[in-house]
Amino acid sequence: MSETEIKGLVERMQAGDRVALARLMTLVENRAPGLPALMSRVYPGSGRAHVIGITGPPGAGKSTLTDRITGHLRTAGTRVGIVAVDPSSPFSGGAVLGDRIRMQTHFLDPGVFIRSLASRGSHGGVARATRDVTRLLDAFGMEHVIVETVGVGQTELDVMRLADTTVVVLVPEAGDAVQVMKAGLLEIADVFVVNKADRDGAERMKSELIQMLHLRPASAWNIPVILTQAATDVGTGELVAALEQHRAALTGDAERERRIRLRRESELLDILEEELRRRLEHRLGNGVDGLAPVLDAVRGGTLDPYSAALRILEDASTLEELLGRA
Amino acid sequence: MSETEIKGLVERMQAGDRVALARLMTLVENRAPGLPALMSRVYPGSGRAHVIGITGPPGAGKSTLTDRITGHLRTAGTRVGIVAVDPSSPFSGGAVLGDRIRMQTHFLDPGVFIRSLASRGSHGGVARATRDVTRLLDAFGMEHVIVETVGVGQTELDVMRLADTTVVVLVPEAGDAVQVMKAGLLEIADVFVVNKADRDGAERMKSELIQMLHLRPASAWNIPVILTQAATDVGTGELVAALEQHRAALTGDAERERRIRLRRESELLDILEEELRRRLEHRLGNGVDGLAPVLDAVRGGTLDPYSAALRILEDASTLEELLGRA
Repeated sequence: MSETEIKGLVERMQAGDRVALARLMTLVENRAPGLPALMSRVYPGSGRAHVIGITGPPGAGKSTLTDRITGHLRTAGTRVGIVAVDPSSPFSGGAVLGDRIRMQTHFLDPGVFIRSLASRGSHGGVARATRDVTRLLDAFGMEHVIVETVGVGQTELDVMRLADTTVVVLVPEAGDAVQVMKAGLLEIADVFVVNKADRDGAERMKSELIQMLHLRPASAWNIPVILTQAATDVGTGELVAALEQHRAALTGDAERERRIRLRRESELLDILEEELRRRLEHRLGNGVDGLAPVLDAVRGGTLDPYSAALRILEDASTLEELLGRA
Repeated sequence: MSETEIKGLVERMQAGDRVALARLMTLVENRAPGLPALMSRVYPGSGRAHVIGITGPPGAGKSTLTDRITGHLRTAGTRVGIVAVDPSSPFSGGAVLGDRIRMQTHFLDPGVFIRSLASRGSHGGVARATRDVTRLLDAFGMEHVIVETVGVGQTELDVMRLADTTVVVLVPEAGDAVQVMKAGLLEIADVFVVNKADRDGAERMKSELIQMLHLRPASAWNIPVILTQAATDVGTGELVAALEQHRAALTGDAERERRIRLRRESELLDILEEELRRRLEHRLGNGVDGLAPVLDAVRGGTLDPYSAALRILEDASTLEELLGRA
């Protein structure tokens, strides 16, 4: 796609065209070449949305919660973008289709835009696509963007880094507080939800979580533990209020400012990495002068790939040819 | 660790020292700096082992199968390395500990070396660590290396690329053939196993798999579908025979030769990527002349990270400073 076409698409998106938004999302999901240039056009219009991450083990009711939160936010008159991230395999994701269909409550609402990222591509690809799709929704003018994951693995934890407010959803039978710690959820949670709270053990899980939270160093924000029953909309108003309180607590906070600066820096690193990798794959595949003998020796097994890599990286002109300006 | 220490460690490993082997594995698992140099020392002694990958959904009995296969191979007098890959979160891996304990049947056998890779690190890190740990076991002199995954996500599929022979293990209740196709398992299987074959639906699943296999383009190797009951060692002898047959079929096969060449090339690409990323993170973190203003602008939000990345990549001397020889 040409520079002019991309410019036109971004302008149409900024003017509120949902089709243009969806096309930009597809480019981003496919990690098309030229993404840095595309996203640098989108960037200036972004940075206003409240990004809410929702994660937790499969079956915790995250989609239903997302649905309910969206309902409350819509009633309050704000517009909502939803990114549903599903990097899991079909063996672990039986409920996904049902969840997506349930989401259709808001599917026809023009104040809501839902995008599923079900890529089976690389781990890093999903996290990057989520980051850029979130930024597109932000630039499109959504006041809230909810990023919901299906499971809670490493990819999902990475995805949550882009959220301003991270909600960790558990259910009474999800295990105990030790598992929450082992899964790395304590470090990322700004709000805990114990969903399906009509089941046995909900109060006990809440007490366990509160005890565990007392072990953390004191901070300005007290992480709440909220009991909900998303299916019947019980406790979800309280959750939405907690989200708004966390957002308010973030504003002007020095720690928050520090995190934003770090996030920007790690985003630069990530963009550099992705672009270097793209150039490396493309140019190694298409042949680079002087590299053919090394490649042949590796393919034939006469040179081990580790030594070959070191040899390539030692030569400045090869490096420039492989990775520099096209 | 110095070049001399690494040399000594590799020599002790090559002489059969299990402690040296374990220490090298730890370096590899931690993705320590200097890995390309370390692995280039290990490489020449490798390439003889038969690498057997075992994957499938959680609960299919992969660990028990690995245990049984190891028993058969040990009876035949060959030495076996086992790599158990577990990149999953605690929420999905309830049975892991039990499986590992069961593995202790072979734990004290000097002809067996077992290593668990339970890293919660990045996706790529686990796949790379598995590749290098497998190569270490190969160089140590293990005639067979079994790489077993806990689940069957993208990481696990990537891990399986290093296997000579890939076994996909299913159970009657794992779903139907459509799910097998959706999970990408049809493309990677050299041998199918339907385990827990005393349960309902085992024969039906076998027929479904055979029908599905008929839809594939014809090839020299006919993918067998084997019924096993690993818990009682039923069918496992047949499985081990199939593994040996597949290995024999590979020898001298032109298609196999093509795959090895491709694998070596993609390994080079992967090593380059990892090393570039390491340098990028290290040097960006430690400050590179001329880059400070760009970094400050990104951190402060006055320059978007996409434009900054493009600016950095356009300058040959910055590129050399960031990525070239130390």
